[in-house]
Amino acid sequence: MQIDFWFTMGSTYSYLSVMRLRERAGDITFRWRPFHLLIILQEMNHVPFADKPAKMAYMWRDVARRAEMYGIPAKLPAPYPAKQSIVANLVALAGMQEGWGMDFVRAAYRNWFQRGEETGSEPNLSHSLREVGQDPARVLALAESAAMRSLLVQETEEAKRLGIFGSPTFAVGRELFWGDDRLDDAIAWARSHRGA
Amino acid sequence: MQIDFWFTMGSTYSYLSVMRLRERAGDITFRWRPFHLLIILQEMNHVPFADKPAKMAYMWRDVARRAEMYGIPAKLPAPYPAKQSIVANLVALAGMQEGWGMDFVRAAYRNWFQRGEETGSEPNLSHSLREVGQDPARVLALAESAAMRSLLVQETEEAKRLGIFGSPTFAVGRELFWGDDRLDDAIAWARSHRGA
Repeated sequence: MQIDFWFTMGSTYSYLSVMRLRERAGDITFRWRPFHLLIILQEMNHVPFADKPAKMAYMWRDVARRAEMYGIPAKLPAPYPAKQSIVANLVALAGMQEGWGMDFVRAAYRNWFQRGEETGSEPNLSHSLREVGQDPARVLALAESAAMRSLLVQETEEAKRLGIFGSPTFAVGRELFWGDDRLDDAIAWARSHRGA
Repeated sequence: MQIDFWFTMGSTYSYLSVMRLRERAGDITFRWRPFHLLIILQEMNHVPFADKPAKMAYMWRDVARRAEMYGIPAKLPAPYPAKQSIVANLVALAGMQEGWGMDFVRAAYRNWFQRGEETGSEPNLSHSLREVGQDPARVLALAESAAMRSLLVQETEEAKRLGIFGSPTFAVGRELFWGDDRLDDAIAWARSHRGA
């Protein structure tokens, strides 16, 4: 059974999922799929938090409570919004193709949420890439290539086609579960609709 | 121990909480507090669903899944958005003062989500009021009075002062839990921070 884990690197709540998920959980395989949510949000004319102080204050408090509940360290608020989240998404996508993507994503989120280094910018990119044994110059050239940009657009279009509008979203076939707090529901759905 | 259950009658997810909550759950008392969320949303320049088709489609699917999980009947989508939710909020507030408010709120939501009668408009108002033994003409005059309008504004200002921006929100002192899916967290918080 497979669950697609759709996420964007600039998302705050996705920190909780990134730190909890591995590639497999028992009989479930998680396919990590970075996409550039900002394109979809701009088309919706929607800003999740940055222009809504009450909602943003709640979000940080909620992330803090849930991180504590899961035993995940967090130094909050982290720098937000991340101005260059697109670079982080491109690097994550390159990493998924080369096999070090999940480790990079975890490193980038740790550096953002535990050390205060904004994701997608320096020094987060170089620190996180070196942590996973990659040469920043090589990877950043690959990430910024036309091919990788085109692939990120394709993945984002696929997310939009599925009806995705937020991160993280867990997709079990056509069934969407939006939010880190829906992970258990997605797993239960995958198990109860096996082969359906 | 007390949890304030802040809700607005035009909210879709609040259906789940309204159908699950009673006045008490064990050692917890729930104080039902209607407010007019629309004022806060307009100040935030935020439309939760109506101008966002992907998010609205997800919301109905999510409400349907969760209603089924709780064993709550639902004929979806219900008419949305409710054009006269302010009238429903005023009637609910009047009912909370006179003691039939919770029963009215449940009736209005049942008529909206099970019979397709838009909340805040006719015939929902008259049907729901008669179901709880109230004379629609008397109650609607009371609900539309300057005093009740002023009280609804006061309650809405109190919600805003607490940092509330959505419905339902469960408040345990200054700690907020937004969303029907945070009810268990709010109860756990109230119990673990008793007297704190």
